[in-house]
Amino acid sequence: MTQTRISKIQDTLQDGQSFYLTNLINIRYLCGFTGSNAALLISKSKAILATDSRYEIASSKQCFDVEIVIGRNLSELLIGKDQVQEIWFESVHLTVSQLSALSKQFPKQKFVAKVGIIEAHRQVKDDAEIGSIRLACEISVAAWRKTLEQIKVGQSEREVRNLLEANMREYGADDIAFSSIVASGPNSAIPHHEPSERELSNGDFLKIDFGAKLNGYHADCTRTVVLGKAADWQVEVYQALASAQAAGRNALNAQATYLGIEKVVNESLKASGHLEYFTHGLGHGVGLEIHENPFFGRKSQDKIKENTVLTIEPGIYLRDRGGVRIEDTVVVTSETYVNLTNLPYELIEI
Amino acid sequence: MTQTRISKIQDTLQDGQSFYLTNLINIRYLCGFTGSNAALLISKSKAILATDSRYEIASSKQCFDVEIVIGRNLSELLIGKDQVQEIWFESVHLTVSQLSALSKQFPKQKFVAKVGIIEAHRQVKDDAEIGSIRLACEISVAAWRKTLEQIKVGQSEREVRNLLEANMREYGADDIAFSSIVASGPNSAIPHHEPSERELSNGDFLKIDFGAKLNGYHADCTRTVVLGKAADWQVEVYQALASAQAAGRNALNAQATYLGIEKVVNESLKASGHLEYFTHGLGHGVGLEIHENPFFGRKSQDKIKENTVLTIEPGIYLRDRGGVRIEDTVVVTSETYVNLTNLPYELIEI
Repeated sequence: MTQTRISKIQDTLQDGQSFYLTNLINIRYLCGFTGSNAALLISKSKAILATDSRYEIASSKQCFDVEIVIGRNLSELLIGKDQVQEIWFESVHLTVSQLSALSKQFPKQKFVAKVGIIEAHRQVKDDAEIGSIRLACEISVAAWRKTLEQIKVGQSEREVRNLLEANMREYGADDIAFSSIVASGPNSAIPHHEPSERELSNGDFLKIDFGAKLNGYHADCTRTVVLGKAADWQVEVYQALASAQAAGRNALNAQATYLGIEKVVNESLKASGHLEYFTHGLGHGVGLEIHENPFFGRKSQDKIKENTVLTIEPGIYLRDRGGVRIEDTVVVTSETYVNLTNLPYELIEI
Repeated sequence: MTQTRISKIQDTLQDGQSFYLTNLINIRYLCGFTGSNAALLISKSKAILATDSRYEIASSKQCFDVEIVIGRNLSELLIGKDQVQEIWFESVHLTVSQLSALSKQFPKQKFVAKVGIIEAHRQVKDDAEIGSIRLACEISVAAWRKTLEQIKVGQSEREVRNLLEANMREYGADDIAFSSIVASGPNSAIPHHEPSERELSNGDFLKIDFGAKLNGYHADCTRTVVLGKAADWQVEVYQALASAQAAGRNALNAQATYLGIEKVVNESLKASGHLEYFTHGLGHGVGLEIHENPFFGRKSQDKIKENTVLTIEPGIYLRDRGGVRIEDTVVVTSETYVNLTNLPYELIEI
């Protein structure tokens, strides 16, 4: 019998200890609740979700492995009725004010800060999670292909955004994973550009960072194309970036380290003379959050665990001229990786 | 000369004190920054924004009243270079882990928890803010009118959501203010229902909670209609709710208290026998956040300040049968209010 997600947490608890969870993503991961207000108390032998009356019906339908209580004061509902002595809390999520209020409300209990326990479990995906991310990626890819046929010189960045997001929905996305980045011409040199009224014109780089959301899981993909015939400098920048992205991607496996992958990408960009124009992190985990652990550049010495889902997304940004980014969402396997955003890497001229 | 938003905060500071702000909405309010990573240090005589290289270009274009520094370690960039003795922080936003890290990084400084200083300024809107909310509401209203003409029996809740959101974008929304609620038939009894594949059928209540976003500001509106001819029970529930919403709305002015408005609505629902089916708060402030201060039911004794923008949104939810909610976004004035979501209140049969 496979363990439930909650029972894995219960294994780390002693009698008299409870874990008071407030982060809604972690709560969703553990028991399926998708609303905007809840707390979860996990003790050795039980788990109770508290939420308010808005979610009484929804929580009764969607939650697993928990009892549910309904009310306004969630901490009172959970901790007030429990004989617990030591309460673990998520210190990267609980605010200073929230801890202060809890300590006053429950002066006899000892509050203990814990970091990353649920996130560590979330980092390695199970089959159901990979299935949802795969579907979200397939929807994204199909929507991209259709949008490519619709893009024309003269459309605004926002129009392209609207087409792409409508296509993702048409192909079955529950929602958009994040506000799409549609950046044309000089705007493509801005890594996180918000779509504007700027109209696409011949000779523009067009960089699009987008993804669909399904069952709470995200897809994350970037492709860059050229409107009309690519200039020599655009071909050069594009090829340099595509080579670096491919080098990093092809080095992925469950023996590689984050640092090792970054080195491969950076060496490729250095060799082509573009390293100084790559100004952000190489990638991040993807799951119930669009950006989640692991992050390249923070735990660089760590090995990448099998069934980690992450992005590889180097970019080259030439201020006031234009920029290129290529990003895939991949699952790391023991020997290699599976690319979930299966789109061409050749420079496309529209 | 009118004061800048930052200079109003500086007026509350003494020499040797600095306010270290980390909440991105508050930072946007104070200096215009719209990215996903920044910290802001306000001292008596200067204000410095720190962000990372992804936002170097964008921040240089959009920010006002601040110097900008770029780097990875935001606290080091701001506090490390400042001769400050006492640092205020936003204790409802800073996490326990963040405060712990700051205290270790800067052991000589005294950290002082502050609550709600920026939020108190944000609660009363200036003309520019009301202008943005008004436009966001007008886009929402126009999109609703168009969508009403497109809704047909047999469409899924998601199809209706997609039509409505596409219409908001067509009419000029920067984005959607929040994931629209489209709830049909028995689903309309779920206050916060996520649009599903359920197909609209004759006799359904159809409850839609939606809004556009513009310049960072939100609109929030709910209307409920019936597909086909309304049954007697639907007419009764709808009229009871519409009367209660109108009563609350019409009691609004800058002398009224939150408690007073709630009483008016609750008495109306009690008189019609529906009070027990109204299970959530009466409304909330709207601005740079879709839900922000003030909230009905928390500061009930307070008077409503002039130029507060808030929602009035009672609902009646009959489990497994259906529900009705009517919600407007309004600006409270000295004598009355201005309704920004100007749509009919009569029961519409589609």
